[in-house]
Amino acid sequence: MRAPPNTASDVSLMDSLASKVSSLLRPEILALSAYHVQDSSGYIKLDAMENPYDWPETMVEEWLARLRAAKPNRYPDPSAGRLKGALRTVNEVPDQAGLMLGNGSDELIQIILMAIAGTDAVVLAPEPTFVMYRQIGASLGLRFVGVSLREADFSLDMDAMRDAIRTHQPAVIFLAYPNNPTGNAFAREDVLEVLKLAPNLVVIDEAYAPFADSTFMPKLAEFDQLLVMRTLSKLGLAGLRLGLLAGHPAWIEQLDKLRLPYNINVLTQISAEFALSKYEVLDAQVAHIREQRDALSAAVQALPAVKVYPSQANFLMFRLLNADATEVFGALKQAGVLIKNLHPAGGLLRQCLRVTVGTPTENQEFIAALGNILKA
Amino acid sequence: MRAPPNTASDVSLMDSLASKVSSLLRPEILALSAYHVQDSSGYIKLDAMENPYDWPETMVEEWLARLRAAKPNRYPDPSAGRLKGALRTVNEVPDQAGLMLGNGSDELIQIILMAIAGTDAVVLAPEPTFVMYRQIGASLGLRFVGVSLREADFSLDMDAMRDAIRTHQPAVIFLAYPNNPTGNAFAREDVLEVLKLAPNLVVIDEAYAPFADSTFMPKLAEFDQLLVMRTLSKLGLAGLRLGLLAGHPAWIEQLDKLRLPYNINVLTQISAEFALSKYEVLDAQVAHIREQRDALSAAVQALPAVKVYPSQANFLMFRLLNADATEVFGALKQAGVLIKNLHPAGGLLRQCLRVTVGTPTENQEFIAALGNILKA
Repeated sequence: MRAPPNTASDVSLMDSLASKVSSLLRPEILALSAYHVQDSSGYIKLDAMENPYDWPETMVEEWLARLRAAKPNRYPDPSAGRLKGALRTVNEVPDQAGLMLGNGSDELIQIILMAIAGTDAVVLAPEPTFVMYRQIGASLGLRFVGVSLREADFSLDMDAMRDAIRTHQPAVIFLAYPNNPTGNAFAREDVLEVLKLAPNLVVIDEAYAPFADSTFMPKLAEFDQLLVMRTLSKLGLAGLRLGLLAGHPAWIEQLDKLRLPYNINVLTQISAEFALSKYEVLDAQVAHIREQRDALSAAVQALPAVKVYPSQANFLMFRLLNADATEVFGALKQAGVLIKNLHPAGGLLRQCLRVTVGTPTENQEFIAALGNILKA
Repeated sequence: MRAPPNTASDVSLMDSLASKVSSLLRPEILALSAYHVQDSSGYIKLDAMENPYDWPETMVEEWLARLRAAKPNRYPDPSAGRLKGALRTVNEVPDQAGLMLGNGSDELIQIILMAIAGTDAVVLAPEPTFVMYRQIGASLGLRFVGVSLREADFSLDMDAMRDAIRTHQPAVIFLAYPNNPTGNAFAREDVLEVLKLAPNLVVIDEAYAPFADSTFMPKLAEFDQLLVMRTLSKLGLAGLRLGLLAGHPAWIEQLDKLRLPYNINVLTQISAEFALSKYEVLDAQVAHIREQRDALSAAVQALPAVKVYPSQANFLMFRLLNADATEVFGALKQAGVLIKNLHPAGGLLRQCLRVTVGTPTENQEFIAALGNILKA
C-alpha cells in the first residue's frame, strides 16, 4: 500500500497492482457496481420500505431488560432454536418444512446461489424486480436471465416465462411476491404454473408478506421444489437483519451447510424473539401502514399527470406522465423528502418513482411537496 | 414436502426429490459435513475461545442506555462509518489501508473466496489450522491445498511451503497468526518469506492478536498483496459477530462489492462502538487471561504424561502421552467441563486436546478434573 503515486516508479507499482487485481478476480466482480445506498440523514426517509413507527416506551423498557441478560462475550446459539420456534409460529411455516435463518434475506439469496455456482446454472427472474437476485448472481459468476414483465400492469408475461423456462432450464427462479419495485402481487394461477413448469428450485420471496393479501407458504406442502423466503425487515425490524427460508428438509439440510455457523448474532436472537412476543404491536403498526397506503395512493393519484400502480406492499410505485422523474426526485430531496428514483434503471421503470408509506405526517409532507413540484 | 413415506408412490417421490437435490447442487456441498457446534448448556465452557468475563454493572447500564437510542425499524448504516473509525484506532490500521467489516471473520473468509471462486484458483494454508478456510473453500468448489506444519513444534515447514507455492501458484494463502488450534505464532521470518514468495493474496488471520506479542498490521505498508484479518470475538465480543479486513484499497474496493450492504446490524454497530469506547475494560480482561494462560500452562504441564505447547492465544493445546484423548475428553465432560477434542482430526493432532483459558475458578476446576482423570 502506498500514498498516491508521485514518481514514475510509484506509478508502475500501482499499474502492476491493478493488473494483479484484475487478473486474480473474476471479470464480473470488476464490472460490478457496488450496491448504492443513499445518504439519508436529515431527510423524511421514504426510500427504503422501513416501518416508520417506534416501539411504545414500555416495550423498549422490556426489551432492554431482556438484553441485560445477553452475553456479548459468548458465541450465539448456532441453531437459533428458540427464535426459529417463534418464527415458525408467526409465519405459519408448515411443521414438516425445514427452516433456516439468514443475516437478512440477502444472505439467504447468496447461500442459494452459492449452492449452484460453478455448475453453468442459470438464474431466472421476471424483471424489473429486487436487484439483489441479479447482483448476487453476478458476484458469483452465475448467468442471469431476466424475463420482462408486461408493460401494462407488471404481470408475469406467461408466454415469455414458458419460453424462457423451456430454453434455459433454470436452476433457480426467483419470484418476488409482492414484487419490488412494482408493488403488485402476480396472479396466483401464473405463479402456480411457474411452479409446475420449473425444472428445479423456485424461490418465492415474500418480503412484503405483512402487507399482502396472499401467500404461498401453505403451498410448501404441495411443491417439493418451492422455497419460501421471508424477512422481518418490512414488519419493522430492518435494523436486526433477519431473513428466513422455509422449504423441504431435503433442500434446507444442504443449503444450511453453506450457512456460516454463527450468522445470527446474540443481540438479534434476543431482540427478534422479544419483538415477536409482542407481535400484536407490530401487527397494529402494519395495519396502520396498510390504511395509510390506501390514503396515500388516492392522494398521489389525485395529483396531475401521475399514474399510481396498485400495491400489496408498504410502498407505492408511480409514473410521471408529464414530468421528468429525475428532476422531481431531486426537487423532493431539496424539499427534504427522500424517495427512490427508479428512472435510471430504464425500461419499464422509465419516469417511475417509488415512495415508502410513512406516518400520516410524513405522507402529507411528501404529498404537499410533490404537489408543489408538479404544479410548478 | 411430505410426511415420512408410507406408500410405494411416496417412496418414489422421495427418491425423485433426492435425485433432484443431488443433480442440482455441486457434489462438494453434498459431501460437506455441517460445521458441528457442541451443546454447551450447563458446562464449564472452555471450548470456544471466549473471554469468560462479564462487563462491570456500570458498563452494562451505559450500554443499555446507548441501545435505547437504537432504531430497530431502520436499516443499519451500510458503511458503518463510526464503528470503522473506532476499529481503525484500536487495531492500529494504517491510514492508507482500506477496511471492510464482516459478520464475523467467517464472512470475510467467504467474501475473499467468493471473489476467486470459478477461476480454477487454489487456496493454500498450512495445516492443522482454522477449519473454515478449507470448509468455506469446499462450499464454493475451490481447490484447497493443505501444507503440513512441522510435527515437532507446528512451525511452518518452509521447504514444503516453497514447493507448494511454486507448484500451485495459490490465489490465496491463509496464515492464522497465532495459529488455531496449535496456539503458536509462526516465525516472523518465515511469514515474511511467504509474503515475498506469494504470487497473489496472503491473508494473515490475526484472530488472536489481543493475546499475541506480534502483528503484521504495520506490514500492510510494505506488501500490496497482504490482507490482515481481525475479529472482536476473542477480545470479548463473540456474540456480536464482527470481523475486519484491512488491506490495500485496490483489493478492498473490489472485495467490498461482494459484501451484502447491510451485513453489520444496528445493534452490533452500536454495541461494538460502545465496547471499544471502553477498551480499557476489555484490555484489562485480556491481561488477566494472558496471566491465567501462563498459570494454566504450568498447571497442565505439571500433570503426568502431558505435553503442553507454547501459546500466544487465549487457549492451550496439549497432548496426552499416555492416555486416550477421546476418553479423557468424555470424562471431562462427565465432570462438567467442556473443552475441544482435536484427536478426531487425526494427523498432527492425534491425542491432542484444546482448552480455552477461563476464569481462575474455571481453570482450577478443569485442572482438578483433568488431574483426577489422568491419575485414575
